[in-house]
Amino acid sequence: MMKDVKEIRANAKEWLDEVITVQGWVRNHRKQKEFGFIDFNDGTCFESLQIVYEKDISHFDDVQKISVGSAIEVTGVLVKSFNEKQAFELKAKEVTLLGACPEDYPIQPKRHTREFLREQAYLRPRTNLFGAIFRVRSVAAMAIHEYFQSHNYVYVHTPLITTADCEGSDQMFKITTLDMNHLPMKDGQVDMSKDLFGKQAFVTGTGQLHGEAFAMAYKKIYTFGPTFRTENSNTKTHANEFWMIEPEIAFCDLNQLMDIEEEMLKYIIQYVLEKCEAEINFFDTFVEKGLKDKLTKVLSSKFVRITHRNVIDILKKANIKWEFEPDYESDIAKEHEKYITEYFNGPVFITNWPKDIKAWYMKLNDDQKTVAAVDLEVPGAGELMGGSQREENYDQLIKRMKEMHIDRNTVDWFCNLRRYGGCYHSGFGMGFERMIMYLTGIENIRDVLPFPRTPKNCEY
Amino acid sequence: MMKDVKEIRANAKEWLDEVITVQGWVRNHRKQKEFGFIDFNDGTCFESLQIVYEKDISHFDDVQKISVGSAIEVTGVLVKSFNEKQAFELKAKEVTLLGACPEDYPIQPKRHTREFLREQAYLRPRTNLFGAIFRVRSVAAMAIHEYFQSHNYVYVHTPLITTADCEGSDQMFKITTLDMNHLPMKDGQVDMSKDLFGKQAFVTGTGQLHGEAFAMAYKKIYTFGPTFRTENSNTKTHANEFWMIEPEIAFCDLNQLMDIEEEMLKYIIQYVLEKCEAEINFFDTFVEKGLKDKLTKVLSSKFVRITHRNVIDILKKANIKWEFEPDYESDIAKEHEKYITEYFNGPVFITNWPKDIKAWYMKLNDDQKTVAAVDLEVPGAGELMGGSQREENYDQLIKRMKEMHIDRNTVDWFCNLRRYGGCYHSGFGMGFERMIMYLTGIENIRDVLPFPRTPKNCEY
Repeated sequence: MMKDVKEIRANAKEWLDEVITVQGWVRNHRKQKEFGFIDFNDGTCFESLQIVYEKDISHFDDVQKISVGSAIEVTGVLVKSFNEKQAFELKAKEVTLLGACPEDYPIQPKRHTREFLREQAYLRPRTNLFGAIFRVRSVAAMAIHEYFQSHNYVYVHTPLITTADCEGSDQMFKITTLDMNHLPMKDGQVDMSKDLFGKQAFVTGTGQLHGEAFAMAYKKIYTFGPTFRTENSNTKTHANEFWMIEPEIAFCDLNQLMDIEEEMLKYIIQYVLEKCEAEINFFDTFVEKGLKDKLTKVLSSKFVRITHRNVIDILKKANIKWEFEPDYESDIAKEHEKYITEYFNGPVFITNWPKDIKAWYMKLNDDQKTVAAVDLEVPGAGELMGGSQREENYDQLIKRMKEMHIDRNTVDWFCNLRRYGGCYHSGFGMGFERMIMYLTGIENIRDVLPFPRTPKNCEY
Repeated sequence: MMKDVKEIRANAKEWLDEVITVQGWVRNHRKQKEFGFIDFNDGTCFESLQIVYEKDISHFDDVQKISVGSAIEVTGVLVKSFNEKQAFELKAKEVTLLGACPEDYPIQPKRHTREFLREQAYLRPRTNLFGAIFRVRSVAAMAIHEYFQSHNYVYVHTPLITTADCEGSDQMFKITTLDMNHLPMKDGQVDMSKDLFGKQAFVTGTGQLHGEAFAMAYKKIYTFGPTFRTENSNTKTHANEFWMIEPEIAFCDLNQLMDIEEEMLKYIIQYVLEKCEAEINFFDTFVEKGLKDKLTKVLSSKFVRITHRNVIDILKKANIKWEFEPDYESDIAKEHEKYITEYFNGPVFITNWPKDIKAWYMKLNDDQKTVAAVDLEVPGAGELMGGSQREENYDQLIKRMKEMHIDRNTVDWFCNLRRYGGCYHSGFGMGFERMIMYLTGIENIRDVLPFPRTPKNCEY
């Protein structure tokens, strides 16, 4: 019977002494004169299956030639293992080579640096580390869908292509169907009316505005899709293409929003701890010592809620020589984020930020100085989510747009949501890669994206 | 207690005579001198809740002024209804206006054409029809994730931005960070080295190639994300941005692939029938008569599997004057798809297509004339999925690429997958909008996309 390694691990006791066939790849091959061991992995779970063969197998000499990386099919009997590290192994009767692998195969059974493996992006999911990272990525994505769907949110596919200049077009990629070397001109300018959409279009960096429209119909919605930024910065936390989750909830104020963020984060952590035990143990040992404790502790903690002003108070009182002086009118720096999450020893919601450093659509508080925004800071990863109550007052919104030089023409419909049965509502955005880095301990965004796109770097 | 309409419907018997508060929107408001009825919808389910108020309510005159589209909060007692169409209604004690709605509100309680509502894309989810469509869209997306995750597939976020010219760059949008009106030139050409990625990049129309790389690590993977095509065609089935699902499975041949496609389709249908009963009933009544029967029948049917050659035989024997003559070397036309699904009265897998009309990466059959491709045709919607076994033979793949003028340089890594432990494998693509059209009976792709993008049309 054809089985995969995950099934075999789950049913090993029952299937002892049964004849089983598996298909997968050779991770390692240790050969002795009279027998051999194949470290066999079929990708269905983190763990490999040990295959042992002896001289009596058919084509013993051919089997011994099978190299690391090859695809094979093995039929054998599931037996108890003599090796103490594992309960069972497959004693092969027949090993068939399905796809060979030459000696120049880059993924050899030894330690490769992450930098080297980044250059082999199409092969690196075959390693323990990246195999674990991208499985956690898949499981965490499902956790997010399950959380929102089980709470009756509607998943909305907001458009990626947009002509709305809502975040500043200099941060968006322009898209075109025109031949860049033979652009149609009119009055000394490129004639964009000749482009597919009849005007300049962009790929967007947010689905929030469109999400709000749907929240005004379904009460609770979320987006989950790719997002693009043109930022020309080569840091460990920036990529030009990444995935983002943006929930938007009608009849929801800032406090209720924090309840949702906290509940969602705990749901994701719980889900991943349950479904990816082997992977999390691996990260805990080889990537971030204490990772598992860190995540487990979050589950039972109540997140602190504190205003930006009170955070600055704490930072000013700290007996520390800051690189950036804490300031009531300014954003907080990485060093401040680190201090404050360590100070409270857990996740911290920071609320009510100075209006001038936050987005134009955030709700102005009664003090006329701060907005009802909230950032969630977590130990080790800094800002994990950013959200706000939205300005639902039409006149106030228009006033802020003028002050902040937002072109109203392309988002008139968005403003109209305030006129047509508008209500208090809130939403947040979470960078998915940031979440994966938090869950795995991986420090570079390039290592949690299957094929990362960064400045001057768009291979594969 | 604050409740939503979905909860109230589920618990109506228990909650009779309880005081309940709801928040949502006015779909309709019928006023009498001594009382009034509000058709109240909060978007949490298809059905509305009837709110009845009488003269004794506080601020009766203000309540009577509340117009269609307004956001309100209502506190009242859940009571048995005198109206035979519904079991219960909310007898209001207090109705509070949260957000007014002026008389020029485009969504009035009357029949609007779908064409009119397309012009109001940001408001149309508030109607019965579009509210139902986009809820089914969300639920069907979840069905797909649940199907694959419960079968241990890994969800892979393949990149949208690519420099690989794998499908013909004329079908892909170019992206740029350059100022189109002041392009840097070098030797009479645009100097793309000045662009963010240092060369011309595109947004892609498929994740298959990258998906194959991950299938060679995890055995079973799927993608689910937005896809872009520059096609300048204004038909009911084309959009320039749409969502696609692309599973890829190692150690899987064409027959096994068809098993998966059939199982997945039945899973999605079953899931949507269960979770969206009210919506499907609505479509069955107002959009496509017999929809529910059509879907239910698929669940218990075994899909026909037939070769392209045998399909042409049937078409040639049919006593019909074709617009396009059936031909052994050619694709089949819409009229043929329709005939053949009606002929078999259900979904049909058509296999082994002439190699020259199919993609370069499909596996060449032993006859050297056909490839191991399969299209799934369904009654009413035509082609729903397209897949193939992939060419796993390196030399054969390179030969086909040369014949079909595919530039190998940008996809060298993809070819290498055949050298490094390659194996027989298969995959398919399913356009998500096509699936939603099939599930709802909606005939225009513009009505199943939240904010459709088509030539000359990129509003909102």
